[in-house]
Amino acid sequence: VNVVVTGAAGFLGSRLARELLAAGELEVAGTTRPLSRVILIDQVPVPADLAADGRVRMLEADLADSPATLAGADVVFHLAAAVSGECEADFDLGLRANLRATESLLASCRALGTGPVVVFASSLAVFGGSAEDGEYPLPAVIEDQTLPDPQTSYGTQKFMSELLLADYTRKGFLRGRAVRLATVSVRPGRPNAAASGFLSSIIREPLAGQRAICPVAPDTEAALASPAKAIAALRRAAAAPVWGRRAVTMPALTVTVAEMVAALERAAPGASALIEWVPDPVIAAIVATWPARIRADRAVRLGLTPDPDYDSVIRAHLSETGVRP
Amino acid sequence: VNVVVTGAAGFLGSRLARELLAAGELEVAGTTRPLSRVILIDQVPVPADLAADGRVRMLEADLADSPATLAGADVVFHLAAAVSGECEADFDLGLRANLRATESLLASCRALGTGPVVVFASSLAVFGGSAEDGEYPLPAVIEDQTLPDPQTSYGTQKFMSELLLADYTRKGFLRGRAVRLATVSVRPGRPNAAASGFLSSIIREPLAGQRAICPVAPDTEAALASPAKAIAALRRAAAAPVWGRRAVTMPALTVTVAEMVAALERAAPGASALIEWVPDPVIAAIVATWPARIRADRAVRLGLTPDPDYDSVIRAHLSETGVRP
Repeated sequence: VNVVVTGAAGFLGSRLARELLAAGELEVAGTTRPLSRVILIDQVPVPADLAADGRVRMLEADLADSPATLAGADVVFHLAAAVSGECEADFDLGLRANLRATESLLASCRALGTGPVVVFASSLAVFGGSAEDGEYPLPAVIEDQTLPDPQTSYGTQKFMSELLLADYTRKGFLRGRAVRLATVSVRPGRPNAAASGFLSSIIREPLAGQRAICPVAPDTEAALASPAKAIAALRRAAAAPVWGRRAVTMPALTVTVAEMVAALERAAPGASALIEWVPDPVIAAIVATWPARIRADRAVRLGLTPDPDYDSVIRAHLSETGVRP
Repeated sequence: VNVVVTGAAGFLGSRLARELLAAGELEVAGTTRPLSRVILIDQVPVPADLAADGRVRMLEADLADSPATLAGADVVFHLAAAVSGECEADFDLGLRANLRATESLLASCRALGTGPVVVFASSLAVFGGSAEDGEYPLPAVIEDQTLPDPQTSYGTQKFMSELLLADYTRKGFLRGRAVRLATVSVRPGRPNAAASGFLSSIIREPLAGQRAICPVAPDTEAALASPAKAIAALRRAAAAPVWGRRAVTMPALTVTVAEMVAALERAAPGASALIEWVPDPVIAAIVATWPARIRADRAVRLGLTPDPDYDSVIRAHLSETGVRP
């Protein structure tokens, strides 16, 4: 089976590629087949270990600019995106990187004529609510039938992409499978421009003995997924024998920032003193539009589960990164 | 006030332009101002009476091709679209005419830097339902909080456009106001490629002594609006002092095809014998995905009302077109 991963230089994309190459096989729509070739697409080079694998072909391209060459692709994992904070700061960037690039990629998939499986990394950011006139507040719990009402450009572009993917699927041009990922925490590596970045950095940095800034109040709730759970959701989306046309919201662990910090203290006593509490109203406003409580019935039927607790999320982070607090 | 109408050669666009020119003024966001200039945009020439008006400037352009010149525009009525049947038959046409053209027009509106009011003609076709796995059936009654779940490319493109318009509005680039129009009946003129076309032709043609084909069963329900009600909804969208970011579903008259035919008989005894009942499963399948019963609370609060009954719709058609049955 030939696999394409867009955004392959990113954290999720490179981890997914690594897992697929290590497995040497991939379950697609109910059938497990050996892995032949992996095309990694990104605007920047992928990590060296991936580039060195003989099964990997790297394609440095901006999907929004020109049609991607996907010859022979059976499964496409579309993870390339500009993140939420970037899209709020640069409207045109978001339109290009999230909407135009997806439009272009789907057209390329259709041009194959083979109906590839296209797994799309959507986001809980499609949900939201507003107290403004003519709007609706965010429901206390997100369910499968909740109306997405994005309150950010990022969420808008992700939802528009879901709809386009569903229509391509209905027409039989491809088999689209959109998964709404929760905020990934603990995300390894360096901070990025995502408004949700602090939900990793307030844990990651103190564990490594570094200072971190928390821009929201301790009682702020968030819906989180460990990197392993996010990757599992993407792989399950490819693997499931059947899938509806509509996006599947993945299950998530609901925690408050205070609970995260308490778990940090249990893992590394004293580490929480490295957190500086500096309220940022812009970040707080964006985070407040995101759902924190999810009832993900469809995902559960597909076999997806949330992380059991935040302590286990921290343990997995320490084990995967080799960091010793 | 300077007004732009896209799709101005179409039936709704030309009627709207005619009404605005006759009124000589336009209420915009709660303030009535004299009409200065009307830019009519379409790919084909507008009717001669409009072109002859000194206040009219015609712009023959494909919005998907190049940015429109909207200099000085205060209000934009965006009605240009490929219709449902065309979009099902030609996927690329729908993407171009409905999605790409809207993306381009909104970028042009933003480039003005003046935050124009943009009234967008969306459609009840954003709603739908499916019995397929992972999907949800169409609710018996559409309400303001019903999750749009388009089952056609046309509906998908309209809903994506609504979302993009809402995000441009949130960013302050323009003041978007989307109205979901019901199927217009009785639409005057010649048949078009809309899957809903028969909902006008089975009345219009027999009233004019001509044969018409009805492709669905008599008990098929539809949500309809007279041309006058559709235009009123568009004008109200421009006029209302406040408007939420989300699209407003306009009220509609729910009738069965049998009730329409009975009203036809009352208006023109014997005329219904001109209807040939030739089931078309493709049309019937598309129509079955559309909602027939609407509870349009937001629209009612904005002062919009449905047609009282189908007899009055036929009377208005006869009076407006001068047709004598």
